[in-house]
Amino acid sequence: MRCFKAVVEYDGTEYYGFQIQKNVPTIQGELERVISQIMGHSVEVVGSGRTDAGVHASGQVISFKANGTIPVENLCCAANALLPSSIVLLSACEADENFHARYSAKSRIYRYTILNRQMPSALLSRYTWHIKKHLDENAMNRATKYLIGKHDFKCFATKPEKDTSTEREVFESSVSRKEEFVIFEIKANAFLRAMVRSIVGTLVEVGLGEREEDDIVQIMESSDRSRAGKTAPPQGLNLLRVEY
Amino acid sequence: MRCFKAVVEYDGTEYYGFQIQKNVPTIQGELERVISQIMGHSVEVVGSGRTDAGVHASGQVISFKANGTIPVENLCCAANALLPSSIVLLSACEADENFHARYSAKSRIYRYTILNRQMPSALLSRYTWHIKKHLDENAMNRATKYLIGKHDFKCFATKPEKDTSTEREVFESSVSRKEEFVIFEIKANAFLRAMVRSIVGTLVEVGLGEREEDDIVQIMESSDRSRAGKTAPPQGLNLLRVEY
Repeated sequence: MRCFKAVVEYDGTEYYGFQIQKNVPTIQGELERVISQIMGHSVEVVGSGRTDAGVHASGQVISFKANGTIPVENLCCAANALLPSSIVLLSACEADENFHARYSAKSRIYRYTILNRQMPSALLSRYTWHIKKHLDENAMNRATKYLIGKHDFKCFATKPEKDTSTEREVFESSVSRKEEFVIFEIKANAFLRAMVRSIVGTLVEVGLGEREEDDIVQIMESSDRSRAGKTAPPQGLNLLRVEY
Repeated sequence: MRCFKAVVEYDGTEYYGFQIQKNVPTIQGELERVISQIMGHSVEVVGSGRTDAGVHASGQVISFKANGTIPVENLCCAANALLPSSIVLLSACEADENFHARYSAKSRIYRYTILNRQMPSALLSRYTWHIKKHLDENAMNRATKYLIGKHDFKCFATKPEKDTSTEREVFESSVSRKEEFVIFEIKANAFLRAMVRSIVGTLVEVGLGEREEDDIVQIMESSDRSRAGKTAPPQGLNLLRVEY
């Protein structure tokens, strides 16, 4: 069997997340439908990670094994002609037979974008979280530095699976402002479920002056989800890139 | 009665255009519903122009007369709380009783954005026209210069009303490239129906080398819609600003 690797961009607004589920639109469901059609047999698509409902991706990576004879350089064009306009295959190549989009990934980079101004925006409402009150992006940035390194991130996980490790390693983490946008970026070996959005919810409380910057340390030590901030809404989140 | 002026941003994707119609969602319909609710009586909203189905606005201007006692500085906040997230009142003020969003307007500025690269984009598909083949933006820009001035633009109008003038005055017109984006901007005293999109369809043929730059002159002199290019799709178009 041939093994394929592809980079996928999607607008997650109208999907119930990446992972396939019965009777609702999902990214994986659409990709499997279209790639199976192209390959002429049922194909299972693996993603680097399962983005939640409403979360977007500029650089999700998928892998799949298939027997189809289509030249790999024609795959994107064929898939994009069959996919809805909200999902696009940006590039594709043939990979080593051991390549696995999830297990082979070394790191994932997410970006979360906040629109920080008085007025909401109609044209940005699908891609940003609107916060009226001024955020102190410098305090938020200093707080993100406590995340860097190997830590137990259980406090930021929604329903972590029992008996599996909640330790992850964060390589980079920062908050910056670009005019009316406050942008959080984080790179880690992997993420727990809803981890980025729980961190954003907590950082926003720091930015609003409702928490101290180093509260993050106690929250992480407590392993108690109820001590962290609320989960930020999905539309501000984008899976930017996956590294192998 | 008080007279109000407001600037409105909207994502036109899911609307049947600005102008109110029965049984379908329209921008004017949503605005009248919400403003009538705030004012406590039926309010008629006037727009600077009627954008077509799927066309967006960053700076549409509306006016309306109303008796409500709401302080004008609270109007945006109240309206945005009641409007869908795809329509936002950016600012509002009280205007002279003779102010009329359509008749008082001196000029309108539209922008049309083309994504000019091999791959489509999932995250930009609502706001751009994707064209794979390379466009010569310099040829397109030179062609736009023939539009400047007072001309009969009947050749670029869809169903022009009989016995009304099809002369308009274009003040500025240009095409430029910003990385993968080819951007057309045009400022005129007013526009005929589908005029900007018909011009874009024609300019794209120039950019693809299918027409000469000065074809525009003969097309305008002919007053024949069938000689101009196809109407470009609505999602690339944005009513940027209206000047009074």
